[in-house]
Amino acid sequence: MNLKTIQQLKKLADRSIDDVKFTTGPKGLYDPVKYALDGSGKRLRPLLLLVMAEAFGADAEKYLHQAAALEMFHNFTLVHDDIMDKASLRHGVATVYRKWNVPTAILCGDAMLTYSNILMMDGLPQSVIHRVMMIFSETSMKIYEGQQLDMDFETSGKVTIDEYIEMIMLKTGALFGCSTAIGLLLSKDEKTPSMNILFKNVVKLGYLIGVIFQLQDDMLDTFGNSQTFGKVIGGDILNDKKTWLLINALNSNLKNEVKRVIANKELTGDEKIKEMKTLYDRLQLKEKITTEINKNVKLASETLDSIGENLVPGGKELIWEYINLIIGREK
Amino acid sequence: MNLKTIQQLKKLADRSIDDVKFTTGPKGLYDPVKYALDGSGKRLRPLLLLVMAEAFGADAEKYLHQAAALEMFHNFTLVHDDIMDKASLRHGVATVYRKWNVPTAILCGDAMLTYSNILMMDGLPQSVIHRVMMIFSETSMKIYEGQQLDMDFETSGKVTIDEYIEMIMLKTGALFGCSTAIGLLLSKDEKTPSMNILFKNVVKLGYLIGVIFQLQDDMLDTFGNSQTFGKVIGGDILNDKKTWLLINALNSNLKNEVKRVIANKELTGDEKIKEMKTLYDRLQLKEKITTEINKNVKLASETLDSIGENLVPGGKELIWEYINLIIGREK
Repeated sequence: MNLKTIQQLKKLADRSIDDVKFTTGPKGLYDPVKYALDGSGKRLRPLLLLVMAEAFGADAEKYLHQAAALEMFHNFTLVHDDIMDKASLRHGVATVYRKWNVPTAILCGDAMLTYSNILMMDGLPQSVIHRVMMIFSETSMKIYEGQQLDMDFETSGKVTIDEYIEMIMLKTGALFGCSTAIGLLLSKDEKTPSMNILFKNVVKLGYLIGVIFQLQDDMLDTFGNSQTFGKVIGGDILNDKKTWLLINALNSNLKNEVKRVIANKELTGDEKIKEMKTLYDRLQLKEKITTEINKNVKLASETLDSIGENLVPGGKELIWEYINLIIGREK
Repeated sequence: MNLKTIQQLKKLADRSIDDVKFTTGPKGLYDPVKYALDGSGKRLRPLLLLVMAEAFGADAEKYLHQAAALEMFHNFTLVHDDIMDKASLRHGVATVYRKWNVPTAILCGDAMLTYSNILMMDGLPQSVIHRVMMIFSETSMKIYEGQQLDMDFETSGKVTIDEYIEMIMLKTGALFGCSTAIGLLLSKDEKTPSMNILFKNVVKLGYLIGVIFQLQDDMLDTFGNSQTFGKVIGGDILNDKKTWLLINALNSNLKNEVKRVIANKELTGDEKIKEMKTLYDRLQLKEKITTEINKNVKLASETLDSIGENLVPGGKELIWEYINLIIGREK
């Protein structure tokens, strides 16, 4: 059997979303849903599910609804988070609550959450439905807990790096871990030898990918190239967002200088970004976060090795290509 | 077998909610969830599921998680609707978004929605899980559509009574229909003779109960006794809420007088309620809505007769007691 290439799977991930149609029901409800899904998202979570399913020997094309469910869920969290974070732009266009209003965005997100459950169930064999739906729902709870911690951090005086990593494991890692877990469950049945250990390692791989993705995002928001990153550089600095970089800086010997930059309301946006980056440079934070990312990539590589014997020929290379897509998304 | 009484089932419905505990996770997320569930809700939806399960011969006590799921879901919709409708009070206490804030209430509702799915799945036999979860999810979509229509009505120039009934069928009827449907599915397997017709009639009964409940609510909000109703009388009039009463008045020969009362910003609250009630009296709307409720009760009674042969002895009387609880909730 020939494995699909990462490019073919990327096309399937895109198609999985494009195939979701809402043809009946009030336009006031479904137009915002379509709008939220139309964004230029990278479809990383559905792609990961398809990559894992294929690498474990299933035909990824059979699980497009499950792939779409992950993206639908992810986009629901963005629609609601954007209200909570008062974010005006997402992928360069107005967020749902800005284009419409808060009630519309709340209801739009609710509908996307429920619809993600409908998609996730669709066509699943009866034997896995409870397991899959429980993983999906428990993942959802973790993501809300992560969002709550993230909001708590913004008003909290002191946050440690360990607390930050715990938060991104929940808010970001959990959905990647859910993507790999469901990719596995769609391909291997419970009777697979050492299924429990395999499952644990597959989830771990997903979480590591999520953490790598988020650290990379933190790094690129400050040190990236705006043309290839697709976001304004320095947004996190302007919003005093407690990222890996800022938390490290606030726990360093330069913490008073960092607090002064944050408190200085007379700085223009550009000046604030420049001053904060100077402090980050003095603390060598670009190098340190790169080291942190590389440490997690090494862990992911070891975890991938540990599940290697369960993959079909070419499966390991396919998953590795996916990881490269994540770590190389700027270069 | 002795059927449980409606009082015993009411205690079980209360217990089903009280048994839900959130012992871990951020307090900022779970305290509002507990608060939203602590309200003096009437637990009508879980009670209906337990009544139906018992009336069809199952042991209702086995399905407390499913009962709790319905109440959890219902309360999630209230938490989000209260933000959308800018409602300050619910059961006489501050709504979640007023006691905390909008982000907290959004996330609280999301968690309750997902948790309602976890509860609904819990302990279900594998053979019904897909069917039950699909009914629950499709019901959820209908409720969002109903809420969207309800919001659309507030800014819409003209709403007909048929449109109003369609809206409350979605926003309120659907969850009662889901309660009866799941009560049936937990008790009877697919091989029950004429299961399709039975299912259809059971869902119809649930919808009718929901419509009766909502019309009764519309009536009591204007003509009820504040001490027994538990809400301020006239709230709908003060908010120009498009209820069965107002829509009828706006479609009557007194529509210009009605519009003048709505447009008159110089009236005090009490004056506005008094003037509108005078118009409602001239239109005999209390009598007309009572006739409408009775018409639906008669339909419910006929529908109950049509499923009678599938009920255990005493089951019909039990369901009838439940309906009496709904129609007699003031008296």
